[in-house]
Amino acid sequence: MQSSIPGVFISLEGVDGSGKTTQAARLCAALQRDGEHVLATREPGGDSVSEAVRALVLATDVTAPAELLLFLAARAQHVAIQLRPFLEAGGVLICDRYADSTVAYQGYGRGLDLDTIATINRFATGGLMPHLTVLIDLDPKVGMARQQQANRMEREPLAFHQRVRDGYAVMARAEPDRFAVFDGSLPSEQLQESIYERAGAAIATIRGSTARITEGVIQ
Amino acid sequence: MQSSIPGVFISLEGVDGSGKTTQAARLCAALQRDGEHVLATREPGGDSVSEAVRALVLATDVTAPAELLLFLAARAQHVAIQLRPFLEAGGVLICDRYADSTVAYQGYGRGLDLDTIATINRFATGGLMPHLTVLIDLDPKVGMARQQQANRMEREPLAFHQRVRDGYAVMARAEPDRFAVFDGSLPSEQLQESIYERAGAAIATIRGSTARITEGVIQ
Repeated sequence: MQSSIPGVFISLEGVDGSGKTTQAARLCAALQRDGEHVLATREPGGDSVSEAVRALVLATDVTAPAELLLFLAARAQHVAIQLRPFLEAGGVLICDRYADSTVAYQGYGRGLDLDTIATINRFATGGLMPHLTVLIDLDPKVGMARQQQANRMEREPLAFHQRVRDGYAVMARAEPDRFAVFDGSLPSEQLQESIYERAGAAIATIRGSTARITEGVIQ
Repeated sequence: MQSSIPGVFISLEGVDGSGKTTQAARLCAALQRDGEHVLATREPGGDSVSEAVRALVLATDVTAPAELLLFLAARAQHVAIQLRPFLEAGGVLICDRYADSTVAYQGYGRGLDLDTIATINRFATGGLMPHLTVLIDLDPKVGMARQQQANRMEREPLAFHQRVRDGYAVMARAEPDRFAVFDGSLPSEQLQESIYERAGAAIATIRGSTARITEGVIQ
């Protein structure tokens, strides 16, 4: 499925306070300076349905299964309305959290069944997964200390965030071609430079393989 | 799982305009006159999260997968907050639409995968299913003519509602012990009497078997 989409899909993942959002904005700016057509978005959120779900989930005391299904409803709408059309038009998509966040937070964090999450994730995304996932690894104690105001998810106890971090590490080991792990305790500028280099390499590789596929079709 | 819950769970299903909502209210009133502790509720809706989801789904142009996930998020919250605690306290629960509506509307109506729906329904309900499902069968042409104002779902074309009706019929044949099918074209009072009789018989049977189980445990 991925090979038929001309765009490049990069997601950023990590515990709260890892610096994902800052790094996503800087990567977006750097790629735009290079002349790329970039869309930076976040999950949950990005369109009106997703933003409504985001407000509901972060403010209300929803049960764990309802929370999971609301996040995935937002993702389904986000993929259909924004992500897939943008990728089909050939742009570089930078997404602050995506399907892996659900596995990390609701699966490893809250202990919901990983197979069920995988089934519902596939249903919600229609199988659309990132080409590159930038995982910013950080001790959640450091991440929590960085946060000024915490929402409902961020107020979970440290043990929860530790399970999330460990879950991400398991996922990165299972898919080493998709995940690139960065040390979130590095100075922000150094981290930014490393992510930019890795993203640039991924874009070149994906464009190269797409070009080869296209040539193959043309010849 | 069901046998450990002392309450009685009755759902009402059918195409739009079949008279479910009216019949649910009359059944509730009749059982209350008999001295039963009754909770009448509806899906989607019943608590604040579910009502917010209901408003979002019925008013907004959501994609089919997002719609399914929103309905199931509402169901998960509804089951955890209202339905299961009420049944555990021994009451008679009357629910206007439940898990079968998702199979009928999103599965048979919109053509989403039935196995995926079954997986997500089980996840959302934790396996809680009605003891008795009252299916009011009606030609959707008649049902649509009865509707004065139509929401987004009710404005779907006739062929959609025909698939929903046919889907319900398949489900009723597959689970004849749970489903009781009634002719929605009968006069409303006659329909009311038949449903009341069937519900009364179901309540007596379930109470009898619960009592026997309890005696067995005590002896």
